[in-house]
Amino acid sequence: MAKLGEILSPQQAMELALIEGGRSAGFTAPNPLVGCVVLDKNNHFLASGNHEIYGGWHAEINAFNKIPSEKIEGAKVFVTLEPCAHEGKTPSCAQTLAKLPIFSVTYGVEDPNPLVSGKGLKILKHAGKTLIHLKEYEQKCINLAEVFFVNQRKQRTFIAMKVASSLDGFIGLNNGESQWITSEEARHHGHLLRGTYDGICVGAKTFLLDNPKLNIRHPHFENKSNKVILIDERGTLVSKILDSNIGKNHNLNNIYIVQPIDKIENSISGINILPLNYKNGFLMIDLLQTLYKNGIYSILVEGGAQTYGQFLSEKLVDRLYCFIAPSLIGSDEGISWTKGLVTQELKNKLTFQRPELEFFGRDLLISTRLES
Amino acid sequence: MAKLGEILSPQQAMELALIEGGRSAGFTAPNPLVGCVVLDKNNHFLASGNHEIYGGWHAEINAFNKIPSEKIEGAKVFVTLEPCAHEGKTPSCAQTLAKLPIFSVTYGVEDPNPLVSGKGLKILKHAGKTLIHLKEYEQKCINLAEVFFVNQRKQRTFIAMKVASSLDGFIGLNNGESQWITSEEARHHGHLLRGTYDGICVGAKTFLLDNPKLNIRHPHFENKSNKVILIDERGTLVSKILDSNIGKNHNLNNIYIVQPIDKIENSISGINILPLNYKNGFLMIDLLQTLYKNGIYSILVEGGAQTYGQFLSEKLVDRLYCFIAPSLIGSDEGISWTKGLVTQELKNKLTFQRPELEFFGRDLLISTRLES
Repeated sequence: MAKLGEILSPQQAMELALIEGGRSAGFTAPNPLVGCVVLDKNNHFLASGNHEIYGGWHAEINAFNKIPSEKIEGAKVFVTLEPCAHEGKTPSCAQTLAKLPIFSVTYGVEDPNPLVSGKGLKILKHAGKTLIHLKEYEQKCINLAEVFFVNQRKQRTFIAMKVASSLDGFIGLNNGESQWITSEEARHHGHLLRGTYDGICVGAKTFLLDNPKLNIRHPHFENKSNKVILIDERGTLVSKILDSNIGKNHNLNNIYIVQPIDKIENSISGINILPLNYKNGFLMIDLLQTLYKNGIYSILVEGGAQTYGQFLSEKLVDRLYCFIAPSLIGSDEGISWTKGLVTQELKNKLTFQRPELEFFGRDLLISTRLES
Repeated sequence: MAKLGEILSPQQAMELALIEGGRSAGFTAPNPLVGCVVLDKNNHFLASGNHEIYGGWHAEINAFNKIPSEKIEGAKVFVTLEPCAHEGKTPSCAQTLAKLPIFSVTYGVEDPNPLVSGKGLKILKHAGKTLIHLKEYEQKCINLAEVFFVNQRKQRTFIAMKVASSLDGFIGLNNGESQWITSEEARHHGHLLRGTYDGICVGAKTFLLDNPKLNIRHPHFENKSNKVILIDERGTLVSKILDSNIGKNHNLNNIYIVQPIDKIENSISGINILPLNYKNGFLMIDLLQTLYKNGIYSILVEGGAQTYGQFLSEKLVDRLYCFIAPSLIGSDEGISWTKGLVTQELKNKLTFQRPELEFFGRDLLISTRLES
């Protein structure tokens, strides 16, 4: 955190804005994560802010609310995303900034929505503000708001995948044993990841075999309840839900069961049933579009092998988290997590970006995005 | 590298000794990697040295050869391994140090050979030198000389394993395609790893399918030729060797073919045939003991899946290098590298230490040791 009055370079200001923006992960959907830093005309740090929660003030406003008005003259604004042009729950940030006696606005990336993109910049330009695109930070700023970018550009739910495997890629044994491959520290961080997405998604087999709770058990998200999405291709889970750990640990209206359109079960009051076309299986892109229409903007897929494979076969993975334990299980009894993903030639393998790494206990978390 | 006269803490001196010792990886077998740092009585850096090459001076002597004799009074010696007590190719280091007017010897770990362990320390103690065991560095100092430690303690060849897999643990496709999963940068580093071991070992199937060269193509080891060990359980490879890339790229007397004792082929002049008992397969511990008796102190196993699995089934892996590409292949067509390793219960999986990490291009190198 920068100190009041500290001199910051544009790069330092943008780095700080990125950190600020990341603080509210899990609380802003369907809005993006955005961070803002304001320097005075001599580059002294004045304030930072972020978009804290959906319906709350935007990052720019939160920053300026901390600054005495006499210091605003000639200030330089750094914001991860192009300031918004439209009046929504709150006034347009571009309009607000345009009226202030600031000197410049430095932004990381333009708004991904083609209907909006550039409009905020136009308002600012029209008001005579100097606009600077800090291109070197564009990818980082997209990553910060990656859920929003996928939502806007692809009109579907963002999909993150969380896998916990051995070093040789196995998530359990043929006999059904899967608890635990990774350490308590890794699993604790898994709960933090859960909190940053709207819903957690698993396949029917995982529901039936593991009877998971799929709630968020992490102090950072004490008051957040998440949604649960069950992929139920046989249409048999509704009747089992009340007695399951999911039924016991969630409000029923947070539970979404996806069933074939011609195999819909009688529902239980509160539970959401999402019908989907079925043709030797679901098309997962249909699922992501349906979830999006139902106001679920991001999901964390936690298995099992078949579910991972179904999404991967359609190249549907926007963020991949692999917790890798330094252990070996062997292919004779191990269950691979990429069942159903078929690579006929190596040039067609799914390729990801250079990952970010973090240790949790002795386990490694590899976080990466599909190469586009 | 420390500058002459720089003041170093004991920890800094030992860190530097570890770096020094590591410089000669690949050149000292059957001797250990050892590094030494000497500070004057006021902790100013005087010199460092390492055991550069088998038959050459030991680390301590190489360090003192750089120090004017008038500066030795009261000096403090830091050495990764207990100074040797025996007169071999060179004089005993403990005797040499005992005669010098030094004040203290700080060491990382005692000699692993029970016949020698503690004898060097005894000589120094007898000569009135202060002895300090820097216990916090013991594991690092063992790791530096890990080949020597395994050789001495287990009387067998040290086995390192090098794997190049996708993030889901596959090293190739069912159709035989395996080139390449990892990047050029990763493969280049693979050649550096080759250089640090006496021999490279592969199974018959890899020899037949890939026709690999298995030589060292890295400037750091321009003048080093390595040995090649082929595991030939069917006893059919001798006749194929001259036309192979291995035959064309190695002196024949650097080639070792391991065959069942009752299926030995007629040899070709120069090539070494190592007979091994056979009972539904080789016992890999027999192989490592046989190689040791034949003066091969360390091997790098490079595949294929069956060979990895054979060693792993006997828990024979002293150092594991996994190059992991951020890509997914899928289990339907992917070849796992831990074929034949069987885990019936998760508590019995092979567990490794918290790994060290390094990027090569976008690929990650995970280096670790089996948890003992």
